[in-house]
Amino acid sequence: MAKTMKAAVVRQFRAPLVIEEMTVPTPAPGQILVKYEATGVCHTDLHAANGDWPVKPSPPFVPGHEGVGFVAAAGTGVKRVKEGDRVGVPWLHSACGYCPYCRTGWETLCGSQTNTGYSVNGTFAEFGLADPDFVGSLPRSLEFGAAAPVLCAGVTVYKGLKETEVRPGEWVAVSGIGGLGHMAVQYAKAMGMNVVAADIFEEKLALAKQLGADITVNGKAKDAIEQVTRATNGGVHGVLVTAVSPIAMEQAFGFLRSKGTMALVGLPPGMMSLPVFETVLKRITVRGSIVGTRQDLEESLLFAAEGKVKPHFSWESLENINDIFHRMEAGKIDGRIVLRLH
Amino acid sequence: MAKTMKAAVVRQFRAPLVIEEMTVPTPAPGQILVKYEATGVCHTDLHAANGDWPVKPSPPFVPGHEGVGFVAAAGTGVKRVKEGDRVGVPWLHSACGYCPYCRTGWETLCGSQTNTGYSVNGTFAEFGLADPDFVGSLPRSLEFGAAAPVLCAGVTVYKGLKETEVRPGEWVAVSGIGGLGHMAVQYAKAMGMNVVAADIFEEKLALAKQLGADITVNGKAKDAIEQVTRATNGGVHGVLVTAVSPIAMEQAFGFLRSKGTMALVGLPPGMMSLPVFETVLKRITVRGSIVGTRQDLEESLLFAAEGKVKPHFSWESLENINDIFHRMEAGKIDGRIVLRLH
Amino acid sequence: MAKTMKAAVVRQFRAPLVIEEMTVPTPAPGQILVKYEATGVCHTDLHAANGDWPVKPSPPFVPGHEGVGFVAAAGTGVKRVKEGDRVGVPWLHSACGYCPYCRTGWETLCGSQTNTGYSVNGTFAEFGLADPDFVGSLPRSLEFGAAAPVLCAGVTVYKGLKETEVRPGEWVAVSGIGGLGHMAVQYAKAMGMNVVAADIFEEKLALAKQLGADITVNGKAKDAIEQVTRATNGGVHGVLVTAVSPIAMEQAFGFLRSKGTMALVGLPPGMMSLPVFETVLKRITVRGSIVGTRQDLEESLLFAAEGKVKPHFSWESLENINDIFHRMEAGKIDGRIVLRLH
Amino acid sequence: MAKTMKAAVVRQFRAPLVIEEMTVPTPAPGQILVKYEATGVCHTDLHAANGDWPVKPSPPFVPGHEGVGFVAAAGTGVKRVKEGDRVGVPWLHSACGYCPYCRTGWETLCGSQTNTGYSVNGTFAEFGLADPDFVGSLPRSLEFGAAAPVLCAGVTVYKGLKETEVRPGEWVAVSGIGGLGHMAVQYAKAMGMNVVAADIFEEKLALAKQLGADITVNGKAKDAIEQVTRATNGGVHGVLVTAVSPIAMEQAFGFLRSKGTMALVGLPPGMMSLPVFETVLKRITVRGSIVGTRQDLEESLLFAAEGKVKPHFSWESLENINDIFHRMEAGKIDGRIVLRLH
Repeated sequence: MAKTMKAAVVRQFRAPLVIEEMTVPTPAPGQILVKYEATGVCHTDLHAANGDWPVKPSPPFVPGHEGVGFVAAAGTGVKRVKEGDRVGVPWLHSACGYCPYCRTGWETLCGSQTNTGYSVNGTFAEFGLADPDFVGSLPRSLEFGAAAPVLCAGVTVYKGLKETEVRPGEWVAVSGIGGLGHMAVQYAKAMGMNVVAADIFEEKLALAKQLGADITVNGKAKDAIEQVTRATNGGVHGVLVTAVSPIAMEQAFGFLRSKGTMALVGLPPGMMSLPVFETVLKRITVRGSIVGTRQDLEESLLFAAEGKVKPHFSWESLENINDIFHRMEAGKIDGRIVLRLH
Repeated sequence: MAKTMKAAVVRQFRAPLVIEEMTVPTPAPGQILVKYEATGVCHTDLHAANGDWPVKPSPPFVPGHEGVGFVAAAGTGVKRVKEGDRVGVPWLHSACGYCPYCRTGWETLCGSQTNTGYSVNGTFAEFGLADPDFVGSLPRSLEFGAAAPVLCAGVTVYKGLKETEVRPGEWVAVSGIGGLGHMAVQYAKAMGMNVVAADIFEEKLALAKQLGADITVNGKAKDAIEQVTRATNGGVHGVLVTAVSPIAMEQAFGFLRSKGTMALVGLPPGMMSLPVFETVLKRITVRGSIVGTRQDLEESLLFAAEGKVKPHFSWESLENINDIFHRMEAGKIDGRIVLRLH
Repeated sequence: MAKTMKAAVVRQFRAPLVIEEMTVPTPAPGQILVKYEATGVCHTDLHAANGDWPVKPSPPFVPGHEGVGFVAAAGTGVKRVKEGDRVGVPWLHSACGYCPYCRTGWETLCGSQTNTGYSVNGTFAEFGLADPDFVGSLPRSLEFGAAAPVLCAGVTVYKGLKETEVRPGEWVAVSGIGGLGHMAVQYAKAMGMNVVAADIFEEKLALAKQLGADITVNGKAKDAIEQVTRATNGGVHGVLVTAVSPIAMEQAFGFLRSKGTMALVGLPPGMMSLPVFETVLKRITVRGSIVGTRQDLEESLLFAAEGKVKPHFSWESLENINDIFHRMEAGKIDGRIVLRLH
Repeated sequence: MAKTMKAAVVRQFRAPLVIEEMTVPTPAPGQILVKYEATGVCHTDLHAANGDWPVKPSPPFVPGHEGVGFVAAAGTGVKRVKEGDRVGVPWLHSACGYCPYCRTGWETLCGSQTNTGYSVNGTFAEFGLADPDFVGSLPRSLEFGAAAPVLCAGVTVYKGLKETEVRPGEWVAVSGIGGLGHMAVQYAKAMGMNVVAADIFEEKLALAKQLGADITVNGKAKDAIEQVTRATNGGVHGVLVTAVSPIAMEQAFGFLRSKGTMALVGLPPGMMSLPVFETVLKRITVRGSIVGTRQDLEESLLFAAEGKVKPHFSWESLENINDIFHRMEAGKIDGRIVLRLH
């Protein structure tokens, strides 16, 4: 077993990450060590490295929370997995296990949770520690590259779609066809929904169409809402907003038919304006949705393993991380970047 | 049977109502004539008389939509009720019966609905027409005076409480202890909820306490949210906002624990600001709720008939309607006014 | 417009139906006349003609309740449809519209319902009356032959699948791959479920496989339950039993994992034995499901119109009805028989 | 701290328990030691001591699973509780924490669960070990004597009532007013339900009436079902069967209105006969319910702490256990026996 490993480290906020040689950590009782084969790169990693959010991580730290690989070692008392198992390490690193949220399958709301690549070291490294009860099980048929983006982007949109309460045969709109949205279109189709894809770039709409969207609409069109209303015979039953712009959120509201639900998964800083009169008269529901639970993660991985959802991604190396972050800030990334780690 | 009747008529918007002698209408096939004993007076009647809302009624018309009385005559083909039955006539006068909303027990969202005292003549009259399939059945043990406010205020808050999805034993906050809120406190207790009452007037809070609220909080207190969070061990599971002020709505948002739901039943004109970051991280649900369905109405009447909910109201005469409207505009009405009609 | 029409009439129970010339009926106010193009033949029609059930129809009467065609005339007051519209006439001919079940979108449980081809004349005729608020809307892209079996077989299994509460990505077993089951497999796949098909005939299992079933199991195999448990990683989340044999029901119970749900749609006369100990320890739910509501019908028709569900059927003529009944009694019908009526 | 303790031990099945002096156990990492103040005695303890069920405990063992007391010591790594905390130790001793059931708040269905007083030593002792993440938190206002019966009888009926899906204002029937049923009546009232109590002994019915039941019915009356149907205007929405007799279960089925749900919490050995025709036509749901989850336990304790539910119990000493078991077998125990342990 290797004694040292390569990792991308945030030494201070808003500075380039440093590729360092670190000691491979040893799993404490109840922990596992994961040998990472790959990790996705998520916008949240950029926020972490920049210290953008109110509660900040403490440099130095290793970002990354879409890690996939093999269990390399297990501390005493570990039951769920064993050496050699294929696992994925998600944003929700661990939770208390006994609070009202943990007790009811909503550990994503646990007040004592730790987060991979944020409050504990993450997956931009060749090895990392994990809580075996919180990793995802990677089905054999699912390759590492295709698995990584499911760990955060996939599970987030899958959960968000569930939170819209749209049933098979009903209409859902996916607003924003980027790293999250292009997976949402596929999940929605696999869940039996009819799908409207909305974006402001025609090439994203073309991609959505190719991934199975029944209808596409350019959000810049003045009659975007009328288009959706007409094509869906009165508006969609639910809308998943992956776009972080308040304007997109307000347009998405207009796509809804009475009794529709809007699920929000992005984390823009500001306020969204909600028209109370329409919300009440049309009995609209607006709901936030944050990543997904362990159960959601297992389910979202199964969809991918069955070939129903295929993330668009390209392989890069860990050493490219600063360049990748620059491209991400410039909005120049299509689909998802996955780092090869072994 | 009387040939003529007294009614309060809106001849033009924002002018005093005129007490007139009108012809008692004759029920068409499928309709009934109701001899009103009493009617509640609702803020919506004032909006109707003022032509406040985008889609306006057409003067001359009779407002009022909390009417209770006896079936005086039935057109051909009426099966549900018969002469002499005690019924209540609510805001939802009729709906199509076959659209997706009517088919699924959400007739309050029917696009072809008519509304009592708005698009058809209402209950500020000695007699009025009704659709027998949309009236409420008044249980024998429920007096007319106590029944009238249930027809709109009662059913609205009862439905709104259901829409919070708070279960027995959990905490709900009722924000605004006026004509609606004082009934909401009682419904919530009868539904097994633990209740926080919030208002900015101490006498309203005292009333709420007397009606069963477990905890009261003055919304003007700087630490109102902390008070609620502490007393409820982390925040309420749901909040019903009867207050129409955006400020009250935003404070109510703060009362919620993670995974909580806010139900809105008021119709203020403007926008509500929703903090997206908190909505997502805490998985908050915000939902509009509009009056209640026929089923909600029957249920809300049963609670009242069993003595679990007693509206505070005072009797007045139809001739007082303009004075009542003045007091309503000045915010000087406690509980509910009920007009005696026979 | 024709004055007379051909119909298959039950003159007495357990005797051959008589093909008669009858007067085309005239729609009363609120009714429509449908010119039938086709009708499916259902096992229930045979029960009706034989007077098998406790509450019997009154000969002479016309059976049939999977009728599809055009609106030929509308009585006064009809709003939902107009002459020329394509509609389907289902088992649920009409319901009261105001009882607790009708009020909540469960009109299939209305105590005052009438039933097509049972308490009112049915669809084994060139024309028939219908309640416009209870017919199904046939989407333009759905041919009459493919639509007819949806009117009863399709909507029944679609509703039954909903009643299993199986979510997309979970496992459902369909027990019995006959007229109902072969449609259930398709609906389940279109709803995003993973599907186990169970039957005792290999050719039915081959059909199921071809229609998309992920796994098939022969119910005669001694280890049928073990096969299903293994293949589904612990048992199915839900099972839809279309087979009417109590033995099939008891085996289906064994397919379930803990917290699973069994939905029954058949109407065998006897009792089913439920093992209480297992039901409690595994938190099993057993639920009856009867046809589908108007909303279920519209939804099930849309799945067919989108090409996701294609009933196997063969055209025959109305004059063949007695022969068809003989084959049905002998269990010799594959898929569904559809009678051409114009 | 005491080194030895008194305990009631099953040395062999169907033999009297032996009161022994045992070593006080030491909590391993992640475990706690509880100093018991009291324990309820449940019918399940008798089944355990008799080795009645298919999967048997291994003598010698200490039965009991309604233990309440103080945390006396905590192993390393325990976070949820600390020395001196008041806790309750229930039937569900521990579960894996990561299987699909544990992940979704259904740990009662975990295949790796251990059970207090069955697979691990129980609460008929002065001290015992527990998993801190699976104990109930005893609110300060709840006395030990009143708390003990909630740990199994209370939480079981509370969960069972939730599983009937009866909403506040609807009707539930409780069949069997013994140790479980008399608590069920109180929980149901506190949850806002209208309650029918059914038993075959008049004194039990009198007790139910006193505890708040709205209606009582003697199950021996020939017209018991008609009585219930009439009094509830068509039948109850749900029924909780605490009686273990198949006859009681079949009668309870008859109490239900269409769309009603029957929840079973008892564990009789045999089969229940389910009339398929009625189950389907009336859309009846029959559901097993096994104890309650950790969340159910916390909720059920809160109802008791708020004084809404008060178990009828009498104090006895541990030394009486064999006599108590004799009386239990003879059906001579009213309410619940609670053993004083310190």
